[in-house]
Amino acid sequence: MAARKRKERLAEEKVFKDPVHKYIYVQDHLIWDLINTKEFQRLRRIRQLGTSYLTFHGAEHSRFSHSLGVYEITRKIISQFERGGYTDWPAGEKLIALCAALLHDIGHGPFSHSIEDVFDTNHEEWTCRLLLEETEINAVLKAYDSSYPERIAAVICKTYHEPIVVSLVSSQMDADRMDADRMDYLLRDAYFTGVNYGTFDLERILRVLRPYKGRIVVKESGMHAVEDYLMSRYQMYWQVYFHPVTRSSEIILRQIFRRAKELYASGYTFNWMIGPLEQLLAGRIDIEGYLALDEALVQTVFSMWVNEQDEVLADLSRRFLNRKLYKYVTMDDADDQLWQEIREQFKAIGLHPDYHLEIDFPYDMPYDVYRPDAADAAGKEEKPPILLLGPDEQLSEISERSSIVRSITGIRQGKYHLYYPEEPLRESAAKLPANMRELFAFM
Amino acid sequence: MAARKRKERLAEEKVFKDPVHKYIYVQDHLIWDLINTKEFQRLRRIRQLGTSYLTFHGAEHSRFSHSLGVYEITRKIISQFERGGYTDWPAGEKLIALCAALLHDIGHGPFSHSIEDVFDTNHEEWTCRLLLEETEINAVLKAYDSSYPERIAAVICKTYHEPIVVSLVSSQMDADRMDADRMDYLLRDAYFTGVNYGTFDLERILRVLRPYKGRIVVKESGMHAVEDYLMSRYQMYWQVYFHPVTRSSEIILRQIFRRAKELYASGYTFNWMIGPLEQLLAGRIDIEGYLALDEALVQTVFSMWVNEQDEVLADLSRRFLNRKLYKYVTMDDADDQLWQEIREQFKAIGLHPDYHLEIDFPYDMPYDVYRPDAADAAGKEEKPPILLLGPDEQLSEISERSSIVRSITGIRQGKYHLYYPEEPLRESAAKLPANMRELFAFM
Amino acid sequence: MAARKRKERLAEEKVFKDPVHKYIYVQDHLIWDLINTKEFQRLRRIRQLGTSYLTFHGAEHSRFSHSLGVYEITRKIISQFERGGYTDWPAGEKLIALCAALLHDIGHGPFSHSIEDVFDTNHEEWTCRLLLEETEINAVLKAYDSSYPERIAAVICKTYHEPIVVSLVSSQMDADRMDADRMDYLLRDAYFTGVNYGTFDLERILRVLRPYKGRIVVKESGMHAVEDYLMSRYQMYWQVYFHPVTRSSEIILRQIFRRAKELYASGYTFNWMIGPLEQLLAGRIDIEGYLALDEALVQTVFSMWVNEQDEVLADLSRRFLNRKLYKYVTMDDADDQLWQEIREQFKAIGLHPDYHLEIDFPYDMPYDVYRPDAADAAGKEEKPPILLLGPDEQLSEISERSSIVRSITGIRQGKYHLYYPEEPLRESAAKLPANMRELFAFM
Amino acid sequence: MAARKRKERLAEEKVFKDPVHKYIYVQDHLIWDLINTKEFQRLRRIRQLGTSYLTFHGAEHSRFSHSLGVYEITRKIISQFERGGYTDWPAGEKLIALCAALLHDIGHGPFSHSIEDVFDTNHEEWTCRLLLEETEINAVLKAYDSSYPERIAAVICKTYHEPIVVSLVSSQMDADRMDADRMDYLLRDAYFTGVNYGTFDLERILRVLRPYKGRIVVKESGMHAVEDYLMSRYQMYWQVYFHPVTRSSEIILRQIFRRAKELYASGYTFNWMIGPLEQLLAGRIDIEGYLALDEALVQTVFSMWVNEQDEVLADLSRRFLNRKLYKYVTMDDADDQLWQEIREQFKAIGLHPDYHLEIDFPYDMPYDVYRPDAADAAGKEEKPPILLLGPDEQLSEISERSSIVRSITGIRQGKYHLYYPEEPLRESAAKLPANMRELFAFM
Repeated sequence: MAARKRKERLAEEKVFKDPVHKYIYVQDHLIWDLINTKEFQRLRRIRQLGTSYLTFHGAEHSRFSHSLGVYEITRKIISQFERGGYTDWPAGEKLIALCAALLHDIGHGPFSHSIEDVFDTNHEEWTCRLLLEETEINAVLKAYDSSYPERIAAVICKTYHEPIVVSLVSSQMDADRMDADRMDYLLRDAYFTGVNYGTFDLERILRVLRPYKGRIVVKESGMHAVEDYLMSRYQMYWQVYFHPVTRSSEIILRQIFRRAKELYASGYTFNWMIGPLEQLLAGRIDIEGYLALDEALVQTVFSMWVNEQDEVLADLSRRFLNRKLYKYVTMDDADDQLWQEIREQFKAIGLHPDYHLEIDFPYDMPYDVYRPDAADAAGKEEKPPILLLGPDEQLSEISERSSIVRSITGIRQGKYHLYYPEEPLRESAAKLPANMRELFAFM
Repeated sequence: MAARKRKERLAEEKVFKDPVHKYIYVQDHLIWDLINTKEFQRLRRIRQLGTSYLTFHGAEHSRFSHSLGVYEITRKIISQFERGGYTDWPAGEKLIALCAALLHDIGHGPFSHSIEDVFDTNHEEWTCRLLLEETEINAVLKAYDSSYPERIAAVICKTYHEPIVVSLVSSQMDADRMDADRMDYLLRDAYFTGVNYGTFDLERILRVLRPYKGRIVVKESGMHAVEDYLMSRYQMYWQVYFHPVTRSSEIILRQIFRRAKELYASGYTFNWMIGPLEQLLAGRIDIEGYLALDEALVQTVFSMWVNEQDEVLADLSRRFLNRKLYKYVTMDDADDQLWQEIREQFKAIGLHPDYHLEIDFPYDMPYDVYRPDAADAAGKEEKPPILLLGPDEQLSEISERSSIVRSITGIRQGKYHLYYPEEPLRESAAKLPANMRELFAFM
Repeated sequence: MAARKRKERLAEEKVFKDPVHKYIYVQDHLIWDLINTKEFQRLRRIRQLGTSYLTFHGAEHSRFSHSLGVYEITRKIISQFERGGYTDWPAGEKLIALCAALLHDIGHGPFSHSIEDVFDTNHEEWTCRLLLEETEINAVLKAYDSSYPERIAAVICKTYHEPIVVSLVSSQMDADRMDADRMDYLLRDAYFTGVNYGTFDLERILRVLRPYKGRIVVKESGMHAVEDYLMSRYQMYWQVYFHPVTRSSEIILRQIFRRAKELYASGYTFNWMIGPLEQLLAGRIDIEGYLALDEALVQTVFSMWVNEQDEVLADLSRRFLNRKLYKYVTMDDADDQLWQEIREQFKAIGLHPDYHLEIDFPYDMPYDVYRPDAADAAGKEEKPPILLLGPDEQLSEISERSSIVRSITGIRQGKYHLYYPEEPLRESAAKLPANMRELFAFM
Repeated sequence: MAARKRKERLAEEKVFKDPVHKYIYVQDHLIWDLINTKEFQRLRRIRQLGTSYLTFHGAEHSRFSHSLGVYEITRKIISQFERGGYTDWPAGEKLIALCAALLHDIGHGPFSHSIEDVFDTNHEEWTCRLLLEETEINAVLKAYDSSYPERIAAVICKTYHEPIVVSLVSSQMDADRMDADRMDYLLRDAYFTGVNYGTFDLERILRVLRPYKGRIVVKESGMHAVEDYLMSRYQMYWQVYFHPVTRSSEIILRQIFRRAKELYASGYTFNWMIGPLEQLLAGRIDIEGYLALDEALVQTVFSMWVNEQDEVLADLSRRFLNRKLYKYVTMDDADDQLWQEIREQFKAIGLHPDYHLEIDFPYDMPYDVYRPDAADAAGKEEKPPILLLGPDEQLSEISERSSIVRSITGIRQGKYHLYYPEEPLRESAAKLPANMRELFAFM
């Protein structure tokens, strides 16, 4: 026991150079050892923003750098809580919180949204498996304290007995808070895409956070800083995360996976296959296979599939690799009848509506702009998301106080986008009826 | 002819958001079409800084973004020349220069230095092949002007009849100038690694460049800005490009390739192989294979080879993927006798000196710090590299005028580094003689 | 005539190093000569943000640097118009627009708002006098073209025959547009105060501006960039320009001037007086006096008045110089009766309500947040301020299209602030009735 | 005693928004009270860079902001020492060091170098007087601890019994170290002028500083960061601090003071005079006068003196206010004979060589580039300035280890500059002999 205690702190603090936080400081042996596991190193081969690099060429940063960033922000918040001596912060939870911050994305696979959609996997489940089953991470955690794997998994699954630790690290699934995860990704994604929005005053926000009755709240005097953070988030969503070109590449990606899954199910023989992907297609992927399934592997698969005899699969793979994405038209509204008519017309000119057509509505995407009522709607949580702490300890929800936040809250500005391959449609444009030619602007 | 002219300029300028230059502006149809070829899009899958991301986790940017950056700097320099009305700039060469700037790195493979070392390939040769043989790039260029493929290849191979175009874009092989290539990579690598050095005043340097008798020279009043640029370069070399951890990962990479080449030559049957790599090992790689050989493919190969029965290859692959790099010790000097003795000792304890040991001297690396005499020594060129243009049109070499540049010029501060796998050596440390134990600090 | 043409362009472009725009480029002799007049150099002695440096210590930048910045933005916009070849921009107006941009603030005195309030002067009138009467600026302009003084004055007074020139430079008095003046001051004030807000993407906005039928409008695709600019403006107003500490210092300043004016009118003999100020107090200030009346002079006056026998004047002067500002309490609402009661109570304990008490409502201040309806209300203008230009040349007002802009538009979040000197009130707190003690939090 | 302890820490940390350090944190009542004294507030009226704003218009920042910055850097260094638990840092000295950092420039007058030159005053002496005599600062310090005024004065005068405190804050007079003073001014001056150089990695440097046997030394692994800092300093000296236009304005300033001093001594009656300046001219300035003598007052004096009947004084005052500075020519070498000849020629054409001519050699200026031998030469100190601390606690001087530092050390690149008023010389150019016409380029 004494031996373990002696090695808890690194003899000398380690630092990582980081463009967003300047430096990331590691002071604990445990954190250092977790970073050096193969499961954590694998995050270097998974991009933070999926296919966004096809729209913003600088966005090639990995989940490895984001995970370090979430860790660093969490570390700074807890340091501030400790310096302030706030009794609402549970003193013994620091290391648990740091581990959870570092590891919260460990289960992400390549291009998660598309793969999860098609194969019904779930990165949170994988995170838990990587914590609890036989992995280097599990071994490192257990060597430190045998209860750590379960406790950290509980934080990430939001069942931990100290809700404030959950609230600090990430609250992705239920509602819309201000946590270390979001603060890092907004700053980091803004930096690597090169856009201006997304640069709020992190230092000021960290200074006004307070632990309060099991939650992280914001000192009232920090309201304007939170407004600024929420406005940054709003701009990032509409200008980066929901960018129609990125959506187009995600659609193609999903269709590649769907097509491959269907072909596999139908007994099609692939010219080229690789173990981890076959496991995925067969629905029996194990930990070793999942860990090997990184973005490098997926891209290699596509570069081989450009020569598959199934022309749909080959075409989609070429489109993704060579960035010949689908074009889109914008529709204010869409009804099922129009939708059906377009499908029929596509078929009539020899296109494949299941693969050559997709209607997309950004609002349905797995991202969140600030919506304090979302939690209630989902029925999971009763308290509203960002709370301001006034001078006499009364709490108020920020949108009650800030009209700018109220205005963002109500916004639903998504339009429908209809995605399709331009060349084949253009070639057959003459055969389309007038309303179709108008819709796709072939006049 | 009229038709071609009509489509030369894009109806509306296109822009790319770029973190380094804010925006990259495309005004010519030809440039836009080149960017959309599959050979250019492939540069998205090749990192600008090879393995540096293992040291600086932000350095995940691609040659795609660097190539756009070199294009943009070249565009800005030529605009300035045109606005200034300098007659020494050959008016008709703008588009040739822009194409050459954009395409100068098109032949780079994954982790170029290591692969070129082991397989004796050459990325400049590949660039020429991709320009001149049957590729989308070649087709786009020829459609514009049938002489373009050859002319652009001549610029990149430095045989072009207008030497100022060569001097503007890149002068990588002979000597040490200030060109668009270097200016972009210093700024870009500094941005993505997050280091402070490397941020010189690009706008000021662009303003003091002048075309003069077939060369790009610098107005004398810009001397301090050039000093600053050279100091940035000096710091980037020693702190980023020559970083010993990056060197360690390059050594492992080279040894993987060497081992695979030897195994292949000896008739070893690989558990897992993929077409383009087999072509490379067999020394008969064709254009299609070369284009498929990107960093995604190489990493996928390694992730399969961790299970090869050849333990050396499997171990090296694991080390690279999981970032279990070789450690190093620093030696002020190294003689062949000591070197031989170390090899013997490694053998004696069961290690494989060809793979478990490497002596490295940064000075030999294919990078250049500013050395005005290098050109003479190589006998290729008589004029010294960065020239200042005085008020009465006399030229002087910058190191004659700037003592700070003189001082950088003379510096040879590389030490020998000895790289080795720590664990196996540590386990056998007791069997080593005292001088070895001291060298590796096992006491 | 030939002679004049020959000297229009500087032989070599001049540059100013500027922290906001990196460099400011001067290409015309006329602009260079205007910068070197004593009237323009005087702007170095007048701070851009008045007393804000007492809240944000970095905000010590002058109207000189802002004026150069407005010139530079105007120059960039016109260059873009010229490159784009837009026929709605009147080709011959470039130099007039540049001069007007440079000189638009030339008539500002020290701490303009306070002085204009008390002495009923007007900086726009002074700008016109400095352009039209005997000054170095007038001489420089006339030497270039005898019609220039009148034409530039017309732009600044918004009576110029080409409304687009007015719209480009500044539209300060009527309504709320996006002009070079505002774009520079938001960026500049954010830079020097060090706040995060206020940094919108200038380069993108400049790219989407278009001249259109006598106005500057914005290409529809730039809507998000304009949203971002308006959100920056919103944040700057509430966090910098309306900061209550800055308001407190402006109140003290105004009271010093009011007291001095009253004393002068009553025949009081000042221990210390200086020519230009005496002219101001006597209501007969001439051009020479006005030019000498800079912030240095005003501060020197205060440093002498700390020893005046009139204790009110001496106390206020000390407060300003030594930054012993008035404190404030916030009131949701204020009625005349309460206001009267407070005045009575102040008198009762020996305070001077005219000087020791001020009710302030930010909404009344001479700044503008974006309000498209303001123009109508004022009856001066019918068209709404920021117009988007759609693909088929239809115009729409931005708040019709952007819900975020609509939300800012409606916001009236100012509360009443009651300013007072803390110490004397605290000393007499016991004598105040309970409701007063509660209001001022003396419990 | 208990009462005092209770109020040592502020109930809530205060922050200043600062463009260089983002925020400046005040945690101690004593520091807060010192900032609010009138002597410290006066630093707002004294520019950090004297007349540099006439060359770099952004450089209008005050000694107030610099003093806060030095305090903040000192605070960060000590926090790091405390966190590291280094026993060589004397635990009880924190508050003394913070006070000394904050107050080290308190004695600076307006345009210190010129005034100290002409009137033989000394800002360090004034700092001590303001600490020790009857001032608000003295009262605040004594109220906290009666020994504080003397102890802080001792730190600033470098006689303090704990040399490490002196070494931390500032070491301006003897030698060339790395202290909080220099680190803040390089970063701050770079920020406000807008130049690129001068931005070294402060966070990294702070991390490698160590207290060691009464000195601040640098961990060897931080050598490259120190190189970068010294290169920044080198560039700032030659491009900002020694800028010839700034030198020209300093020369005019000094000549104004010299002329006024001579006129006063000769019994000349000034049309306009003000108390504090008369005290200075008469050599009997007291504390109250010195405090009133800020840059506002000096500029006001000049704006009045433009109307003095002494034409030399009036002309110089106009030149300074309206920025009609002296021009300069560069001379590689200067001998007394040439110098004498120029003086004679100036006299011959009616110019006043004492006021219209000045030979300037930057090397003599009261700034320091890094020279480790300077200390020895001055005989004041034996140890060389920046020391690196190796892994086994051996110290080495940085220029022994870094060739880049060695190279900066040896540089003496100053040339002689001859300053003179252009117009009168040009008017009489025809009367000058050929060698003079050539020297001043009148051909």
